[in-house]
Amino acid sequence: MIIKIFAIYLCGVKSMQILLTVSYDGTNYAGWQRQENAAAVQQRVEEALGLLLGGKITVRAASRTDAGVHALGQRASFFVPLLKIPVEKLPQVLNSFLPSDISVTAALVVPDEFNPRFDARFKTYSYKIYNAPCPNPLVGRYSAFIPQCLDIEAMQQAAQKFVGRFDFAAFCATGGSAKTTVREIFACDIQAEKNPGGMVVFTITGGGFLYNMVRIIAGTVLYAGLGKLSPEDIPGIIASKDRKNAGKTMPPHGLTLETVGY
Amino acid sequence: MIIKIFAIYLCGVKSMQILLTVSYDGTNYAGWQRQENAAAVQQRVEEALGLLLGGKITVRAASRTDAGVHALGQRASFFVPLLKIPVEKLPQVLNSFLPSDISVTAALVVPDEFNPRFDARFKTYSYKIYNAPCPNPLVGRYSAFIPQCLDIEAMQQAAQKFVGRFDFAAFCATGGSAKTTVREIFACDIQAEKNPGGMVVFTITGGGFLYNMVRIIAGTVLYAGLGKLSPEDIPGIIASKDRKNAGKTMPPHGLTLETVGY
Repeated sequence: MIIKIFAIYLCGVKSMQILLTVSYDGTNYAGWQRQENAAAVQQRVEEALGLLLGGKITVRAASRTDAGVHALGQRASFFVPLLKIPVEKLPQVLNSFLPSDISVTAALVVPDEFNPRFDARFKTYSYKIYNAPCPNPLVGRYSAFIPQCLDIEAMQQAAQKFVGRFDFAAFCATGGSAKTTVREIFACDIQAEKNPGGMVVFTITGGGFLYNMVRIIAGTVLYAGLGKLSPEDIPGIIASKDRKNAGKTMPPHGLTLETVGY
Repeated sequence: MIIKIFAIYLCGVKSMQILLTVSYDGTNYAGWQRQENAAAVQQRVEEALGLLLGGKITVRAASRTDAGVHALGQRASFFVPLLKIPVEKLPQVLNSFLPSDISVTAALVVPDEFNPRFDARFKTYSYKIYNAPCPNPLVGRYSAFIPQCLDIEAMQQAAQKFVGRFDFAAFCATGGSAKTTVREIFACDIQAEKNPGGMVVFTITGGGFLYNMVRIIAGTVLYAGLGKLSPEDIPGIIASKDRKNAGKTMPPHGLTLETVGY
């Protein structure tokens, strides 16, 4: 006890907050958030931290990704009274306690008042579509397979229509807890491999997203690529605030949380 | 019976040989070749063909990839008395009988005397190394993780030393059935992502390969990148014909059979 108090005195703080960058293959998880009867990424990270640092540690994430959704740059933070190893060594040590489908790639000390969710200025998600006559098992885990011909130019035009501050009620699944459905999108783009039959990557950056919003926007942009709607229809769909007018919700495995910006 | 004979008469041939291009994620398979007590890719393809075309169908492959090894362009052929669907429709229909980690991406009719293994002029394999301080779960299924700094130039120089016709006895695991250990390598290269910490892709094209040869050469090129040997040592290692002098056998999950050329 005396040693602990002395250590805290040495640190000059009662506790410190550590912010982690976390990558995961979401295939085998019920999403980020801890669940009663299913494995969640949060649980695995908290277990690893508990084993390494001792005690019960709770992490708060920037984004509660859904079941099956992947992350390259998820951010999650936790408080610890005293970190006994240099913070820059934490990822490597922590990874030895994590399964191979979860990896901590960075760690840094942040102020106590920092909140990884509410202090996020932007988040970038990618949605990958593998567009070829036949599926490719080497990319199938991280992309949706669409065999039909896609009009990439129409998809690019459609993506542009989402940039701005709008009420995205038409692009929100029921079950969300948001107080307002107004969100701002900073960038929305399509990049396609030049050879016919390859990966089409939809990327969206925004201040925040509603429940299933990225997957519904990706589905609507796909509809433009399939000729099921015109890019010109999109402002009207947004204005309608009616979920029925937007495209389908794309499956989770094509979605990756790329980065969170502070 | 009369109908069958009539159909064969119409075709003008007793039977036809079909050559498939097959892609697979090898993670959950004991390799290409059919096994007694483990799931093999060959078995899944033969089962799908049996369900679609009826009867017991045996496929012959260009390469018997090992357990855990992936393929983008494996080739495999089979004989069928009469194909009731256009050959170009075969991949799509066949895929509905295959699990999601195996996909047939092309099919064409080849002469009866064609042999997918012995008529192969070259095969191209890639070996992927993810080189960053921490693993990336989104690429970990298809690449080996190496956290140490790599000297890419040394790896490029080392790779070049393998081009030519040599006795590759030093790069062959025991257990192979080859009559000679002489093989010809047409090209051997390293490509690395420009940003530090990314994918390093080793690609090798040759007339044929010995048992574990690509994984041992990849391990030897990696040793050059780690400074464990110099590119100048490689001609001596080849000349020694001694497996002990070459690098380690890299794990199977980084290896992909990219293409087979006829």
